Amino acid sequence: MNTVEKSFYGLPHVIEAQQFTRPWLESELFPMAKQMEAVIAAGGNEELRGKLMLLIFTEPSTRTSISFEMAMKRQGGMVVEREDATRISSMAKGEEGDDMFTVCGGYKPDVMVIRHHLEGVAARATKVAGGVPIINAGDGKGQHPTQALLDLYTIKKELGRVNGISIAMVGDLLNGRTVRSLSYLLGKFEGVRIYFVAPPCLQMQGDIRDYLERHGVAFANLNDVREAAPLVDVIYQTRIQTERGSSYDQNDPSQGYFKIDCDTLTVMKPKAIIMHPLPRVGEIDPAVDKDKRAAYFRQAQNGLFVRMALLKMILAPKTKS
Amino acid sequence: MNTVEKSFYGLPHVIEAQQFTRPWLESELFPMAKQMEAVIAAGGNEELRGKLMLLIFTEPSTRTSISFEMAMKRQGGMVVEREDATRISSMAKGEEGDDMFTVCGGYKPDVMVIRHHLEGVAARATKVAGGVPIINAGDGKGQHPTQALLDLYTIKKELGRVNGISIAMVGDLLNGRTVRSLSYLLGKFEGVRIYFVAPPCLQMQGDIRDYLERHGVAFANLNDVREAAPLVDVIYQTRIQTERGSSYDQNDPSQGYFKIDCDTLTVMKPKAIIMHPLPRVGEIDPAVDKDKRAAYFRQAQNGLFVRMALLKMILAPKTKS
Amino acid sequence: MNTVEKSFYGLPHVIEAQQFTRPWLESELFPMAKQMEAVIAAGGNEELRGKLMLLIFTEPSTRTSISFEMAMKRQGGMVVEREDATRISSMAKGEEGDDMFTVCGGYKPDVMVIRHHLEGVAARATKVAGGVPIINAGDGKGQHPTQALLDLYTIKKELGRVNGISIAMVGDLLNGRTVRSLSYLLGKFEGVRIYFVAPPCLQMQGDIRDYLERHGVAFANLNDVREAAPLVDVIYQTRIQTERGSSYDQNDPSQGYFKIDCDTLTVMKPKAIIMHPLPRVGEIDPAVDKDKRAAYFRQAQNGLFVRMALLKMILAPKTKS
Repeated sequence: MNTVEKSFYGLPHVIEAQQFTRPWLESELFPMAKQMEAVIAAGGNEELRGKLMLLIFTEPSTRTSISFEMAMKRQGGMVVEREDATRISSMAKGEEGDDMFTVCGGYKPDVMVIRHHLEGVAARATKVAGGVPIINAGDGKGQHPTQALLDLYTIKKELGRVNGISIAMVGDLLNGRTVRSLSYLLGKFEGVRIYFVAPPCLQMQGDIRDYLERHGVAFANLNDVREAAPLVDVIYQTRIQTERGSSYDQNDPSQGYFKIDCDTLTVMKPKAIIMHPLPRVGEIDPAVDKDKRAAYFRQAQNGLFVRMALLKMILAPKTKS
Repeated sequence: MNTVEKSFYGLPHVIEAQQFTRPWLESELFPMAKQMEAVIAAGGNEELRGKLMLLIFTEPSTRTSISFEMAMKRQGGMVVEREDATRISSMAKGEEGDDMFTVCGGYKPDVMVIRHHLEGVAARATKVAGGVPIINAGDGKGQHPTQALLDLYTIKKELGRVNGISIAMVGDLLNGRTVRSLSYLLGKFEGVRIYFVAPPCLQMQGDIRDYLERHGVAFANLNDVREAAPLVDVIYQTRIQTERGSSYDQNDPSQGYFKIDCDTLTVMKPKAIIMHPLPRVGEIDPAVDKDKRAAYFRQAQNGLFVRMALLKMILAPKTKS
Repeated sequence: MNTVEKSFYGLPHVIEAQQFTRPWLESELFPMAKQMEAVIAAGGNEELRGKLMLLIFTEPSTRTSISFEMAMKRQGGMVVEREDATRISSMAKGEEGDDMFTVCGGYKPDVMVIRHHLEGVAARATKVAGGVPIINAGDGKGQHPTQALLDLYTIKKELGRVNGISIAMVGDLLNGRTVRSLSYLLGKFEGVRIYFVAPPCLQMQGDIRDYLERHGVAFANLNDVREAAPLVDVIYQTRIQTERGSSYDQNDPSQGYFKIDCDTLTVMKPKAIIMHPLPRVGEIDPAVDKDKRAAYFRQAQNGLFVRMALLKMILAPKTKS
């Protein structure tokens, strides 16, 4: 991943949050995403005309796949999209599971977006796809780097900065890959403080804690979102990933400690924001939506801008002057 | 819906059959649909180039979704299409169910076509989708307004008029939303007479009867399609909506009273037509297809023309001179 | 099918391997497919701009459908794609099953690609689709003619010739339609010798053997791929079609006789090739992939070129000078 750290254009796979440098995030990605807001406001362009994205998902994710497809088409590109979990993954066992990506690489799409129910598949696809750029759109319990990029862009846009922020990550931190990927990105900034607010059985794993420690990020565990709310600039709420086998009992009385409602709003800082990768299933009371601090729908929209920016950087690279 | 009644261009949601006025139907929609027949004959055009339709179906309907997608692409537009019932609807409960449309509205498609298994969802989507025009492609037991428009266009095209026609609606009138939406449209014309031909347990509901009464449409119940056939200009045959829980026993001997076969043809008027929203599952003997009065395949094709017309009116509005 | 044999351009349905003549294969298809390799290398073109393909699959086949869609889009064409087996096929019984194709034909796509779980459906669709060209992408236990064309193109490209080759067809010859369609094509060439290597319960059917006999193709049964390997120029390996009801016990010790591993490589001719329609599920050890004789991924890529060629021939026919 070293080449990526030097220049995104040189090796255009998007596999994991760690691969990006802070200078690239701040001086390349953020301005390009900002530019894309104007492109959408103008109804799109045709800068990626003739370019073709192949999007293969073996795990359902309507929102992510729609935003990728729209990010491509709004720039005039073409998309071939397949999302049938059972169908595509039925054969996907062991080394043979990669055959799909070898074959699809041979069809020569200009970029391949992969979501897979198994960790590490997107990274492996880069080895067999004959040089086609790969974007990891989520790999099992692994990462979801474009979600982390849009999360970071949202923080920057909403708060004006990333350095020095306090953030509470709430919910299922064991199985939620968005909080894992975001932690990696936050580790690249200074003065960040993280509170992990989760039931003990769903707490953040040791590998992330080690990474944060090595990168000088302060973190602590808390047991109640109401305790964290007054302390932070960002509440990053997640849902229990029952589809990845979370055993947490949602009817346990203590689950209320990990939900946001109008009471939470009263103890939050006035300029703090609430984020959520969506979909939600009960962790945020819809009554909260009306509050300006509810940033999750703006966050979802940022996903479109950030994915447009990534696609443009991969498919229409800057020419050196 | 008042603005719609004044000018379709001003408020471009297509939610329910009642919203359209007779002048709009006759002087805007019908001529535009006619024009689209020429566009198809010429192999399409690029008038909607750069425009993007987002089509979200949580309930299967291959034919409707294909005709919408072709209606867009034949005018040079782009389509993002998702139709996985189980996947999309798994989270769709209560207010949170509308999150999908809030998020998708934020992606700024130029139009959103929604089919949903729950009544009222398309109307609710207009509140959260940030101004994106919504087309209701069927909402549970609610309505299916574009089907009603293509049905009406078919009657006009085949018979030369809508005023003064007699029509028999046959089959499952309790659960079939096409006959409901068509009844609303017919109520806007004069001298129309409707016969409801259905088993008692599947008869047309009171709200439609009330509406027709208020609008001066004559209607009556009949128990046998053979009794209705000689009286009408249109037999509108529907299938039993087992997927919406119809309890009618299809092996009941009386079911023959609600089917069309070659015997029915012998008692029909020579210039009458047979319509069906398709797919059929036994209500019309395929031997009937060869008869010129079998209009259901022409009706299906009209769906393409009418949807093309609607999309053009929403996405390429007339400029006032 | 006579008109097809005279001129592919005159009657553009692609239904079964028998329909093609050897002159057409050699002087039309092969050169056009070769030309398409250059089109892909150049990043595509827009020769099929404004043309629309409707792709309807009632049986899963991610790879085939992706290559068809890319073949269309890389030439600037549009695609409407539906692949939901349960949804589309639920109504497909008897004559009514063809209604789908009558309706879709009425929507006037420029070409319709059909995969169906029942034999004969693509051929029947040509009768009801109102003149829309149909491509059979696999019909139950019937045929898969575009696979046969890409297989033949692969043999020609890899070995430089088709006349005089020896080929071993290995695996499930009873249910595999690719080996059936390829046999029909090989019957058009001279001096071809075929070995059928399969468990007795999965051997090649009598209709193909009769066809080969009538066309002067020599063939014989063998019981072990290791016996066939030293004799042939092509090993065409297939998988057990469990989804079509093969009763063969995959845990039977004799199954090893129908698999390819590194030992097989040691007894193969140095310039022979291994082909497989993919996906594989254990019949070829991935360790074999590194050997130059493993041609199956190149074969899959040829599918893109051959389908591009077919689409161009159907949709942008040569004008007579």
